[in-house]
Formats: sequence, structure tokens, C-alpha cells
Amino acid sequence: MVKVAIYGASGYVGGELLRILLSHSEVEIVAATSKRFSGMPVHKVHPNLRKVCQLSFVEPKVENVINAEVVFTALPHGQSVHIVKTLLDRGLKVIDMGADFRLKDPSSYEKWYGFKHPYPDLLNIAVYGLPELHREDIKRARLVAVPGCMASASILALVPPVKSGIIDESQIFIDAKIGSSGAGSSPTLEGYHPERYSVVRPYKPAGHRHVAEIFQEVSRFAKNRLSIGFSPHAVNMVRGILVTIHTRPTEKPPSLQDLWRCYRAAYDKEPFIRLVRDPTMVHGLPDPKYLIGSNFADIGFEIDLDFNRIILFAAIDNLVKGAAGNAVQCFNIIFNYDEREGLNFPGLHPA
Amino acid sequence: MVKVAIYGASGYVGGELLRILLSHSEVEIVAATSKRFSGMPVHKVHPNLRKVCQLSFVEPKVENVINAEVVFTALPHGQSVHIVKTLLDRGLKVIDMGADFRLKDPSSYEKWYGFKHPYPDLLNIAVYGLPELHREDIKRARLVAVPGCMASASILALVPPVKSGIIDESQIFIDAKIGSSGAGSSPTLEGYHPERYSVVRPYKPAGHRHVAEIFQEVSRFAKNRLSIGFSPHAVNMVRGILVTIHTRPTEKPPSLQDLWRCYRAAYDKEPFIRLVRDPTMVHGLPDPKYLIGSNFADIGFEIDLDFNRIILFAAIDNLVKGAAGNAVQCFNIIFNYDEREGLNFPGLHPA
Amino acid sequence: MVKVAIYGASGYVGGELLRILLSHSEVEIVAATSKRFSGMPVHKVHPNLRKVCQLSFVEPKVENVINAEVVFTALPHGQSVHIVKTLLDRGLKVIDMGADFRLKDPSSYEKWYGFKHPYPDLLNIAVYGLPELHREDIKRARLVAVPGCMASASILALVPPVKSGIIDESQIFIDAKIGSSGAGSSPTLEGYHPERYSVVRPYKPAGHRHVAEIFQEVSRFAKNRLSIGFSPHAVNMVRGILVTIHTRPTEKPPSLQDLWRCYRAAYDKEPFIRLVRDPTMVHGLPDPKYLIGSNFADIGFEIDLDFNRIILFAAIDNLVKGAAGNAVQCFNIIFNYDEREGLNFPGLHPA
Amino acid sequence: MVKVAIYGASGYVGGELLRILLSHSEVEIVAATSKRFSGMPVHKVHPNLRKVCQLSFVEPKVENVINAEVVFTALPHGQSVHIVKTLLDRGLKVIDMGADFRLKDPSSYEKWYGFKHPYPDLLNIAVYGLPELHREDIKRARLVAVPGCMASASILALVPPVKSGIIDESQIFIDAKIGSSGAGSSPTLEGYHPERYSVVRPYKPAGHRHVAEIFQEVSRFAKNRLSIGFSPHAVNMVRGILVTIHTRPTEKPPSLQDLWRCYRAAYDKEPFIRLVRDPTMVHGLPDPKYLIGSNFADIGFEIDLDFNRIILFAAIDNLVKGAAGNAVQCFNIIFNYDEREGLNFPGLHPA
Repeated sequence: MVKVAIYGASGYVGGELLRILLSHSEVEIVAATSKRFSGMPVHKVHPNLRKVCQLSFVEPKVENVINAEVVFTALPHGQSVHIVKTLLDRGLKVIDMGADFRLKDPSSYEKWYGFKHPYPDLLNIAVYGLPELHREDIKRARLVAVPGCMASASILALVPPVKSGIIDESQIFIDAKIGSSGAGSSPTLEGYHPERYSVVRPYKPAGHRHVAEIFQEVSRFAKNRLSIGFSPHAVNMVRGILVTIHTRPTEKPPSLQDLWRCYRAAYDKEPFIRLVRDPTMVHGLPDPKYLIGSNFADIGFEIDLDFNRIILFAAIDNLVKGAAGNAVQCFNIIFNYDEREGLNFPGLHPA
Repeated sequence: MVKVAIYGASGYVGGELLRILLSHSEVEIVAATSKRFSGMPVHKVHPNLRKVCQLSFVEPKVENVINAEVVFTALPHGQSVHIVKTLLDRGLKVIDMGADFRLKDPSSYEKWYGFKHPYPDLLNIAVYGLPELHREDIKRARLVAVPGCMASASILALVPPVKSGIIDESQIFIDAKIGSSGAGSSPTLEGYHPERYSVVRPYKPAGHRHVAEIFQEVSRFAKNRLSIGFSPHAVNMVRGILVTIHTRPTEKPPSLQDLWRCYRAAYDKEPFIRLVRDPTMVHGLPDPKYLIGSNFADIGFEIDLDFNRIILFAAIDNLVKGAAGNAVQCFNIIFNYDEREGLNFPGLHPA
Repeated sequence: MVKVAIYGASGYVGGELLRILLSHSEVEIVAATSKRFSGMPVHKVHPNLRKVCQLSFVEPKVENVINAEVVFTALPHGQSVHIVKTLLDRGLKVIDMGADFRLKDPSSYEKWYGFKHPYPDLLNIAVYGLPELHREDIKRARLVAVPGCMASASILALVPPVKSGIIDESQIFIDAKIGSSGAGSSPTLEGYHPERYSVVRPYKPAGHRHVAEIFQEVSRFAKNRLSIGFSPHAVNMVRGILVTIHTRPTEKPPSLQDLWRCYRAAYDKEPFIRLVRDPTMVHGLPDPKYLIGSNFADIGFEIDLDFNRIILFAAIDNLVKGAAGNAVQCFNIIFNYDEREGLNFPGLHPA
Repeated sequence: MVKVAIYGASGYVGGELLRILLSHSEVEIVAATSKRFSGMPVHKVHPNLRKVCQLSFVEPKVENVINAEVVFTALPHGQSVHIVKTLLDRGLKVIDMGADFRLKDPSSYEKWYGFKHPYPDLLNIAVYGLPELHREDIKRARLVAVPGCMASASILALVPPVKSGIIDESQIFIDAKIGSSGAGSSPTLEGYHPERYSVVRPYKPAGHRHVAEIFQEVSRFAKNRLSIGFSPHAVNMVRGILVTIHTRPTEKPPSLQDLWRCYRAAYDKEPFIRLVRDPTMVHGLPDPKYLIGSNFADIGFEIDLDFNRIILFAAIDNLVKGAAGNAVQCFNIIFNYDEREGLNFPGLHPA
């Protein structure tokens, strides 16, 4: 049994961490903090946990989490940075859900997040928490930076064909579609149901922060400088991300077999990657609908011979493989548990 | 380990049985039948089970399920009746998801289902599979008739106050709201997305079959003849049922404490009943949204002093506590397992 | 041409008034006020009016609306009361969208709205703006109090059978279902898309204010004291209300012909009432889906011989027949225009 | 007054034609045909038209439409071709909603639609019915081929910057998102609400037929051979299309002013094109939500300086500007009416 704490447990990612960790056979949750709901039973804020969770929120103070071995920090960008430093100094391991330790280049924080990173040294010890790319580093990590949700999906779809040299690195256009929970748990006009229902709303079609992570991680496998377009859209669902990546073959078009081979080589042993391409079925390409609540990432592809294109797809649940589930997978890796522990819910159909 | 088979496994209830039983530590699934998809991998029809289920569908023949100890039959009304008879004759236990064995009075089948029941004797050995009412009988059952989804929710909300004499049995008006999965997995015009999205559509406002079950089960606790109105509505979600029961106190209005006491006495030890009434929270009354995928039934109530009313609420997932989950709960009771086995998924928030 | 102003034009009801009045051949809009958006083009707040509306919002001051002949006031409850008084004193006609003048009994405001009405005399000159009941009074009105949305639907369904003595006045249970726009245009946690999508959420199941209006208006036709249960539910759509009214016949059950005759007698000449009961079609009972954007109220009914019940249904668009459209219908009556003027959009199918 | 007939009036496009033409001051509808619903009142199939439309469907026979001056044909692809020929031979004008006359090159039909075109000569007289490109030809047309819905949106966004030489014709990737009504009015498993709700489902990511129209029409303005990727997605709404076009500048990036100028020059006089780019508002880029039911096409754009990209957006209602509304606009052009006649509904907000 490992003692864990969740620092910032009242938001949507915090709620998912609670849900997953409560079912984890090797975990004891010693604290779940919330500034706003301190003292209140957890199930009042996360109503799915009624009769499941007996915890109450505690104040977000270091003393309240200090007897944990690992702390999951789920705080707004820019807020984790000092907490994480303090927790590491006290000898705890930290799995950070925010963006504060994802980028390796300190100057990137100024460009993309608008603040000067106060602990550039920590960027060196932070491991980008995508098990499919960094499993060995995660095993030894003291600080894991869990990837951004849309970044995870994009990187998982892109890395195998970039690494194999199948796709043209100068022509990568990512069109993302995301549910409303991706905006967090604080009400906004953008997210108000009358304004948000039935939308297909472009937002930040240029300059979205997740492109920085995608660029960093995919570049590691690229032969040439990447050019990555990234344009997300809000669509009418609560959870889920689909990224559609419009790209081209490097030279001559690959066959479907080439693509199957490329992805199988990369992901055949991965517990949470499913390759989906079956033109005979309604569900023949990735769609987040079939994996909500699960830690799966579904990846698929198509070839367009008329216009010499390759189209890649990846679907995840933004709160699970895009956040809390992926974090628990990292936790399992660090502590050498079965990676599936706590993460075996397969999703619902239909839902 | 108990060997089980699912007879009729390609529909939505069959899919939920598969999902739940695959995670059940004491179950081996020996067969999943489907006339239409025989020979095809299960995950092609139930895409959430990709990488989770290695089974393929087999022909719906008695020989294919005969080495099971228990068969879950999930067939359209009127089709289970002969299959169930055959399976019982061969010594198997049957948990039937259909309506063919729910009613005790053989003549009811003519009135409500339009067929003369061919095996009225079996109605005597069939146990109405609502653990909260019939746990002891279920333990010894060879044939369990799993309740209708809207009936389950209604009965669970009604029985405690009817039994306690709190509500007037002559004034019970059930207004049900249900998601689209309640209509089964075969496409119809009614269920076509352009026609079904954003509806609040009354259907069968008089004469719906589930009233027969509700009448039968609630009458067992009533002092006088019941009068039960039942009028369902299709609303814009896939899973979930809310029943709102408009009723009146027998004589003087009860206090909220009376109602709390009444429900607590009935359900305090029940693993899947949650009492929900908390006016301080957004989620302060039952709503299926917070239990989708789970076997919970959330029950709540309100008193209207201005017009001398009591309003009762019950929310369930129609495919889980309203079908497959409840069936597995019965299975656990029969085999003396923890009732929660296979059923510990708590639902998602938000979703 | 009549000069009109809209006092409070940036909310959802204000936006609908603008949309409708812009297409009205006999209206000139001289002012649209908004405290928050004063100076900003209207179409920035109401994006459907881009290229349609050249107006900009002005400050909410009496001077800004004083050269209008009629002012539509669309303000939060309790705020219209003084504005309306001032406008009437200056000789303008007022069509008030709020609740401040709907009830005739001054003491009702203390009970239902929590304030002592400052101008009880005005309650005598205010006309409850439901043309189907008060057309003659509306013609001569200086002050029209436009009914509450859920009240309109309920009253329209109830009055004919209550007046005809068909239904038992002591057993009336209204179960309402409403879209998210009914809560107004200010974001809330309750209305946040992740929390509001796919809900069937009971709210204010006892004590909802609209019951006061329903009681007042239906009582005018009742022989005995009414008992009215009213319990609304939030469902997953933006616009629309369905009320399902569970009731009983007075003595012997009426025939369907009796009900047809009763409603036809009441509504045959009404331009915006449609009677809907056609069991052969998917759309055979009222559902707001088929009238969104229109001023129609669809009314239907069913008889339950098994349990001696009558079920009534009414569907409207809460922002049109439940607010702005109904207000314009009143305006047309006052100025002796065709009641349909500006209101001939029939709704979309599918949508 | 012009006598018109609708050949194939029971589908979703037929229903929209009826809705729009019923409100057109210069039109008399002499026939609305339906094989399946012949003899039945129109409002039974199109419930929004209850109390609005007194017509009944008639058999789909040439005699039934022959006294019309213009026939709108709304038939499945491949079925209009012979009807259209017959009607033209009898001297009627035809506005065809299908794909049978959209392409100029007869051999394209074999490639994209799988049939050899029987009347290649008619392809020469057919005018591609996009008023913004072909207004002068439409004025004189005997046969108008109304564009495909996703093609209309794509072409309207692409033509101005292609014509101006702003974007690189070899890098055009169209990512389309469309509502469920785009699949027509016949129920399918793909479109069944439990399967279709909350999806983001890629379909035909390569080889979709609309690319042929886009290629044909945009090529007319291109200096070099176009390369057009086109990949649509089903999203959770009933009506509406958003196309997001990922592209690059030809040489140096344009300024926002360049793009504004380019689109304004093209569309300033167009009654149904709205340019939308306002980063200060929630509704600051095109989204079909704000124009459902209207004939507007909203067009917007963004520049990504980090990765040298231009992103274009166009939103329409697939059944209006993408079909019936655009057809009526063509009709108005042919008969020299105000193009807005019958088409002045502005859309709803919120909805």
C-alpha cells in the first residue's frame, strides 16, 4: 500500500483521480485538498462518489499531505510550480497534472504561458509522463509532468509514423475536437449550456499552448524541423477528444499494411493503445464515445490516394488517458504495479 | 468460478452483461450467442470491449450454452419463454432479462403482452428479481425474472412509503423520463438522431406495460387497491431513467424526518441504494447523470406543504440497475458472492 | 408604424424580442437598452442578428425610451416594478416580461417573491397577457403582464377541461420539463455544460413560483378549490417546455371525442394553438422540438381507462410563446394588427 | 406568382423547401410529391408545418407537376437524372437538389458516383447553383444543380483567397463537421440516437464525393493544380456544418487586413455572406449554431505566425444554405425577385 495525496481534488481532474485511486488495490488516499470545499465531504462535490468515498476535503497545506509518499497535484497552470518544489524538497514524489513542468526549455514558459519559470533546474528532473514514450524514465522519476490532454492524443498518433519516416514532417495539421469538461470545473459564459450545446466552435485556432508539447515530443523523432498546425474545436459532448491529423507521405504513399506495421511495432505491447480501422463497422475509426471513462487511446488511419494524403486519428477521454488515468498509469510504473491496476474500466456502449 | 452463458448477447443489455461479467472475478463466460453476428468477434459489435473481450458470438442454440451453470437470457419479449423452459428442463439456472416471467397472473400476459402464456406453472417458480424486495427468494431461485427498467425505479421509490402507510395509495402518478437506449439496439424512425435529439416526447402515456409489474409488486405492501398512473417520456440522453412520482400523504403530511426514517429503515443495508436529498447542492436530488454505468439507484423526496403533496424520485441506469447490473446482483445472491462483485464502478462525473 | 423600445434587451428574452420585432412590418425599434453592453452593437451579443440588426445598445434610462409608444420591459423579477411605474406615469404603454404584475393579490408577492409590492394599485390595471384568456382586456390594456413560460403552457392545457367540468380540480399534478435557456443568460454552475448536459434534474419540486399564476388563472374557471402540484425538471435541450398534467375525470371518464370537442370549442379560432393527438405518427403528441422559434402552443391529451386518468400535454418554446412571441401577440392585439404579424416562423424539422 | 412543384417532398430537404416556399410571397406550390406518403397531409410528415400547410402529398408522376413552371427535384443521387430530362423536355425549369448535374465532366460520374451519365449534353446546360460564383449564369438557367452542402461551405471559404493568390493551392486540408440531418431522413444504425449521440465520428476521410465539386469549382480560380484533402466528421447536432480549412500562405504570410480585404471584395454585396472574426466575443468565429434555419454562410479566418499557416472557417445550415435555401435563392435570381424573399429568417440565439 502506498500513501497518496491529491492536492487540488475538487476539480474534474481531481475527481477522476479520486474515482480511480479509490478502486486501486495498492493505494491509500491520505488527503484530498480543496480550498473552497475544505471540511466538506468529497461526495458533495463529486456526486458519483456518494456511498463510495468517505473522505472529506482538507485545506491545501503542505502539512496535510506530508505523510503521503506521492502527491498528485491538480492545480491551475502556474500554481503548481511552488507547491511541487516544496513537496520535492520534503522528499515526496510528485505527479503533476498541470503544465508547469512539461516543457524542457525554460524560455518556452515565457512564450507559451507568460511567466518566467522560477525553477528551471526542476525541468531537468521532470519526466514527461507519457508511458508509451518515456516508460523507463518514469520508473525512476521523482517528478512526473502529466501531458496535456490534446497533446497526448496528438503525440500518440504522430510518433510512430514520424519515427518511421512515413509522413512529411513539414505538413502536419492537427484538427482537434474536445468536450466541455476540457475547460475545467468553473462556470463560464463560453461553457454555459445554452451557449455550448450543439456548437462546433473553433477556439484558439492559432497559438494554442498544447502545440509546444507536441512540438517538443514529436521533434525527438523527426529528421527535419517539424511544422505543426494545431486548431481545436469545442463540440457537443462532455468528455472526449478526437484529433484528426491531416498529413502527407514523405515520398511515395505507404500501403495500409505499412501503416498497420508501423503502429503495431510501436504499440503492440501497450496495455492502453488500441488500433482501430475496420471499414465494415459503424465504429470503424477512433471516436471517443467508445472509451469514455477508460484509459484507452484509440488510434486509426486512412490513406487518400486521390490527393496523396495520410489521415491519422486518435481518441481519448480527456480526463482519463488525457489526465488522471494516465497519471495513475505513471504511478503504477513508478511503483512497479501492473499498469492496468485501477484502470480496468473499459468504457460503456452505448452511452 | 461459475460458468455462465449469455443467450442474446449482441443487444445493449447483452453488451452490458458482457462488460460486467468480464470483470467479475468468479465468472467464466462460456458462450455469448447472436443470430445475426454469429462467428464475429464480440468487440466488433460492442466497441468498448476492444482489447477487453476475446470472445466471438456463437449461434443461439441450446447446445452452445448447455455446459454453463447459469444462462442469462436477453431476448425480445415473447421469445425467451420457450428457451427458458428448455434450459430449466436441462437443469440450468436462468436469469431472464425479458418480461416473460415477471408477472404472476397468467392472464396478465394476454392483457399486457398480447399472448397466452404457454407455461403458467413456471410463473410460480420464477422470482421477481429485485433484491431489495426478494433477496431470500432469489437465493433459492432456479429462474429469476429481472424487472423492467422503469418498473425497478418506480417500485424502489414507492415500496417504503406505501408499506409505512405514508402515502395515499389511490393517488400515485408516475412521470418517467428515459434515454434512447431503453428502446433497444435496432434502429427505428423514432430513435433516429435527427428525430430523437432534443426531444421531450411522451410515449404510451396510458397503457404502458411496466405498470403491470409496478402494480403487482407495490400491491403486496398496500392496504387498499392501488391506483397507479404511469406515463413515460423520451428525453435527450442515451442512458438513464428518472421517475418522478406525484402523490399525497394519507392523512396529515409527514415531516421530512418521517420520510428519511422510512427510507433509511428500508434501505440502510442495501449496497446499491443511495438516498439523495441535499438542497444545498446542484446535485441535491436524484438524476441519472451521476450514476450512469453503475448499479446504484438514487432515491429522493420532497414535501409540498402548500398543496399537501409528496414527490418521490428515483434514478437508475436503465441498462445496469434497470437490467444487466441488477441481473448480476441476483447472480451474486444466488451464488453467495459479495453483491458488489463485478459491480463496483461508481459512475463518472461529469459525463 | 409604432415606435417601440426594449428595456433590458441583452438577455435571451430581449434577444427574441429584437429578432421578432425586426421582422414586424409595423414596428420601429427606437431603443434597446443594456447596462452591461451599452454602446455595443446588438449583434455582438445576439450573433444570430449579425447583418440583420444595425442597432447598438443604449443605457437603461427612461430618457432613452421616452419617445417610444410602447416599452417592452425584460428585467429580472423585482426590477421592473419601478421602471414600469415611471413609464406608465409618462403615458407610455408597457408590456412587462417579468413577474412583477402577474399576480392580482398584493400579498402573493410577499409569499412567492419575497417583497412587498410597492404599487398594489397597478395590479388592478395590469392585464395578464394570455390572449387566449384575456384578449378583450388586452385590447384596452396600458400594462400587460406577460405570463411565466411554464405557467402559460400549464394554463393553456388546463383551462378548457377545467371550465368544461371534465377534470377533477382536486387532482392536478403538473410535471414540467424545460430547456436550459429558461434559466436566463447569466452563467451558473447549474447551467454549466458539463453539469447540465444529459441531465434530468428535478428543481424546486415544491414551491415553484409559477404555481401562483397557474392557480390564479385556472381558479377563475374552477367550481371548487384547486389543488395544483407543480414540479419542474431541467432536461437536455436549450429551448422548449413540455408540461405533462396528470389528472382524473370528475366522475365518469370522458371519451376522446369529449376532449376533442372541449379543446376545439376553446381554441378553434386561436391562431397559435394546435391540437396534436395522432397515435399513428412519431410526432403524435406535443413535443417542443417541432415548434422551437415559433409562437405555437401544441396541446394534446390521452385517456387511461385502466386507472381512470386523463393526461394533458402542452408544448411551447419558452422564449417565444412563453415570453417574447406572446408579448408581440399582445402588442398586435393592442394595436389591432393581425395577431400573426412578426410571428409567422413555423419552426424547423428536424432541428 | 410562379407555380412551383416539389418532386420528392417528404425528405428533410423537401420539408425545408416547403417551409421556405410557403412563406414566399411570389410562389404558389402546385404539387408536393411523395411515393411513400402519397395522399397524406404534408404536416403529418413535417410536424412543424401543422396549421401552416394545407397540402397533401401526391404521387411522384410527371403529370402531377406538369402545370408548374419550375420543379424542385429532391431525390436520391442517380434518381433525378431521368426525371430532370423529362421535365426539361416538357419545357419546365428544374432546380435539382441532387448530385446528378453538379459535375461538368461526364467521366467524373463514373469515378465518384459509380454510374455512366446518360445525358452528358445536359451537363453543359446545367448551372452550378452557387449564386456567389454563378449569379449571371443562374439568371438564364433552365437547369440549376444545387451544390452539395459541405461543398458549398468549402467553396465559399476557399475561392476568395485562392483567386487572390493568398493561399498555397497545393496545401488545402478541409476538416468538416456535420450534423445528423446531413444523412437524410431514412433511419440507419449509424444515425440511431444511442449510436449517434455525443459522437465525433470520422467517416469517408478519403474519397468523399463532395471533393469532386470543390475541386471543379475552386480550380476555376487556381493558378496551379489544386490538392484538396477533404475529411468529414459526424458531430452531435442535427443541423449545421463547419468546415475548417487548414492551409498555408503562398509566399510570405498575409496580414489580417489582407484577408479582410480579400473577403470583403468578394462578398460585400452578397446578401447571405457574413464575415465573422471578433476575438473579443464568445461567438467570434463561425459556428453553425448561430445560423440554423437561415440562409447565411458565416466565413472567418485566422493566421498562425508560429507555423506559417492560414486557417479558414465556413459555417452553414446544411439544409438551408447547403440545400433548400440556396435553391430558393437561385429561384429568386431566375425570376428576378429580391434574393432575400422567403429567406429572411435570421436564426435563433440561443438554440
